[in-house]
Amino acid sequence: MPISGFPEWLPKVKLIEEWLIATITKVYQTHAFLKVETSSVEHFSTLEANGVEGKEIYLLKRAQSSDDESSNETLALHFDLTVPFSRYVCENLNNLHFPFRRYSLQKVWRGERPQRGRFREFYQFDIDTVSRETLPLACDAETISVIYKAFEALSLFKFKLKLCNRKFLLGFYRSLELRTEDEPRILVIIDKIDKIGASGVKDELLNLGLPQEKIDLILAFSAKRVSVREFPKVSKEFAVSNELYQGGCSELEQVTALIDEALHENILIDFSLVRGLSYYTGSILEVVLPDYPHFGSAGGGGRYEDLGSRFSSQKLPAVGASIGITRLMALILEENILTPVTGSVIEVLVTVNNEESRLKSNKVADKLRSSGVNCEVYFKAPRLGAQIEYAEKRGIPFVLFLKEDEGGESYELKDLKSKEIIKLPDVAAGYAHIIAKREMVG
Amino acid sequence: MPISGFPEWLPKVKLIEEWLIATITKVYQTHAFLKVETSSVEHFSTLEANGVEGKEIYLLKRAQSSDDESSNETLALHFDLTVPFSRYVCENLNNLHFPFRRYSLQKVWRGERPQRGRFREFYQFDIDTVSRETLPLACDAETISVIYKAFEALSLFKFKLKLCNRKFLLGFYRSLELRTEDEPRILVIIDKIDKIGASGVKDELLNLGLPQEKIDLILAFSAKRVSVREFPKVSKEFAVSNELYQGGCSELEQVTALIDEALHENILIDFSLVRGLSYYTGSILEVVLPDYPHFGSAGGGGRYEDLGSRFSSQKLPAVGASIGITRLMALILEENILTPVTGSVIEVLVTVNNEESRLKSNKVADKLRSSGVNCEVYFKAPRLGAQIEYAEKRGIPFVLFLKEDEGGESYELKDLKSKEIIKLPDVAAGYAHIIAKREMVG
Repeated sequence: MPISGFPEWLPKVKLIEEWLIATITKVYQTHAFLKVETSSVEHFSTLEANGVEGKEIYLLKRAQSSDDESSNETLALHFDLTVPFSRYVCENLNNLHFPFRRYSLQKVWRGERPQRGRFREFYQFDIDTVSRETLPLACDAETISVIYKAFEALSLFKFKLKLCNRKFLLGFYRSLELRTEDEPRILVIIDKIDKIGASGVKDELLNLGLPQEKIDLILAFSAKRVSVREFPKVSKEFAVSNELYQGGCSELEQVTALIDEALHENILIDFSLVRGLSYYTGSILEVVLPDYPHFGSAGGGGRYEDLGSRFSSQKLPAVGASIGITRLMALILEENILTPVTGSVIEVLVTVNNEESRLKSNKVADKLRSSGVNCEVYFKAPRLGAQIEYAEKRGIPFVLFLKEDEGGESYELKDLKSKEIIKLPDVAAGYAHIIAKREMVG
Repeated sequence: MPISGFPEWLPKVKLIEEWLIATITKVYQTHAFLKVETSSVEHFSTLEANGVEGKEIYLLKRAQSSDDESSNETLALHFDLTVPFSRYVCENLNNLHFPFRRYSLQKVWRGERPQRGRFREFYQFDIDTVSRETLPLACDAETISVIYKAFEALSLFKFKLKLCNRKFLLGFYRSLELRTEDEPRILVIIDKIDKIGASGVKDELLNLGLPQEKIDLILAFSAKRVSVREFPKVSKEFAVSNELYQGGCSELEQVTALIDEALHENILIDFSLVRGLSYYTGSILEVVLPDYPHFGSAGGGGRYEDLGSRFSSQKLPAVGASIGITRLMALILEENILTPVTGSVIEVLVTVNNEESRLKSNKVADKLRSSGVNCEVYFKAPRLGAQIEYAEKRGIPFVLFLKEDEGGESYELKDLKSKEIIKLPDVAAGYAHIIAKREMVG
């Protein structure tokens, strides 16, 4: 029985995941991000100190260790890629060029009770840019653009890229002169607005005992979802004059000014975008899929003023974002956004006339393989009809036959779709046919 | 501090690993193997039942779980890719085509005390072919050939592919009419021959209390390392007539007859090749690197008559092999077999004249990116000299400048190696120069 929360795919479904990964990798790489892979484990103390509820973390314990290792040394599986990246950067400060742009595709683990769309083991696909000096807002704009382009490259679904700014948000809530303990509570409530709606938010704010006029103001504010162009005007409607709010507005405006205008169409400044109570200190972003409103976030991230305070005395400003590959896979499969190919990734079945001539079949296959064609040589040597049936059943598009007569060796290629049989002067001639068909499919 | 036994690489070292993986992937894929990825965890009971000392296994435990989960349900990190593959095949019997060829590149974990060349977390890169009916010896030959071609494709070191056959070995030891308990003990001793030498083997056999004549025979037998061509003659020298021995000889001869003769040169039939006391039942193979005799096995595998007996009532004969990617990485780095590139994987630094024109720089970069060129846009806008220095320091080979005058926008590309400055009529013209340089490097 498969283990709940630990997804596994059939080979043709795995191909979809491989394609997702390759498509996003190309966007990340061409934007000068370098691949980093950290170990799957961290000291538990490292994870604990980075502000995550311990109960979601998987500890490691050697099955037959008699010695109880000291709890300081307890190892645990990482639950995200940001904490390990912070540690990695601080360990390698002198071996990296800054600003350092990295991408990471790794599995992460969370011991949560599995539910629809939630996994215990899943792939995240992150980018982060970290600097040893100040990190210009151009890097925020770049992060946002790269994530945008990744979803554009997938071109599987309509998407909106939501932006906000933590300073802008906090400035607004400060202006309400709330009790200190209420501010984080309110942010937690606002964070749920897409799930519980404005009326749910209203109810929970009433429960906090806030006065009606503040509730009205919060509801009016958090209902705003405006275009990049409208933002300066709308942000002034709230007449908040504190430095935090003004600074946040200015940052947001500077960041969006550094994003290509062609991208603005799908960007939305969302005044309710909180992204949890995490370490973000400036820009925050989130990707949502309007056709799948219940799916939630397909990716998100933001700016954090100090990536490495726990690991280094140096201040390391950073900006990053993450795409949830495994969650996207679950959506793609559930909604049939992509379906596994009906054909095979094996392009040619090379038949075997008899075991004595298997080496000849192997050689023919090797010639095609050296040009990158995926070839299977039939594993037995029954009558050719059975071999053709085998290829048909698997969706292998071509079957190659070896003929021997007084003129020496010759080859025939059968296109199983058109039923056409092509006489080949040599194996290389078969390559052209196979590639032509491949490009038609692609 | 990095955690002992959990290797991490700098970005340029990671590129070497990526290249290893890509090179072997191409060999596996063109030989019609399909990618499968299983979850990192299994039920502990599954691993325990598959014959591995429990002490090497990492159990998972949720950090704050109050309920002690029943030990049946305890999860553990997999220690290899074969046990998970068996489970996967048995779970998906009706959704896979047989014979099913799969490759898997995944991390595995072993809680051993780390030592030189041994890791607690490491990549294995496996192939396996599994059938629901009999699996012809042609599949053994294919597995051996594919592993051979993978090392050939790497072309990083001389290698020898050692072959033997478990039936042939057991047949020989049966003929000695040993006490039942001695047979596995002897095999364990023989398995260490490369480490302890023939004299070490002799000492340990003496300790077992074997008579001198049997020891002499064992030493003579296990010293044999012969070519494919010599094998039939040499195997007859030992005058063993039991069915097991004869069957093993015949299998070995059939398998090698199905391997292209061009490969025979690096194939050695090694009468001391045991590959542990694992589940192998027929062919066994191992790759060694003659220039690094202490490195041990760079890869290995064999035939197992029943992959899935624990998971299914169906008998599933299989043959497979594994390449130890992380161990190879350690060797490559230790012996400087490959050194990280001095240049950058970022091919062009697009300069920024001032923040107002950053979007123009971005657009130029995007044009190159759409052709697959890795571009970095400078993150600030200091004088151009500082930007050129930045590219030089990182080994980025080209810097692109945007010029604006009455004639509109124009571009210049500076080759930092030749110091040549090329005027570009348009961005696409820059692409040709960059690609030309890339191919020269490649």
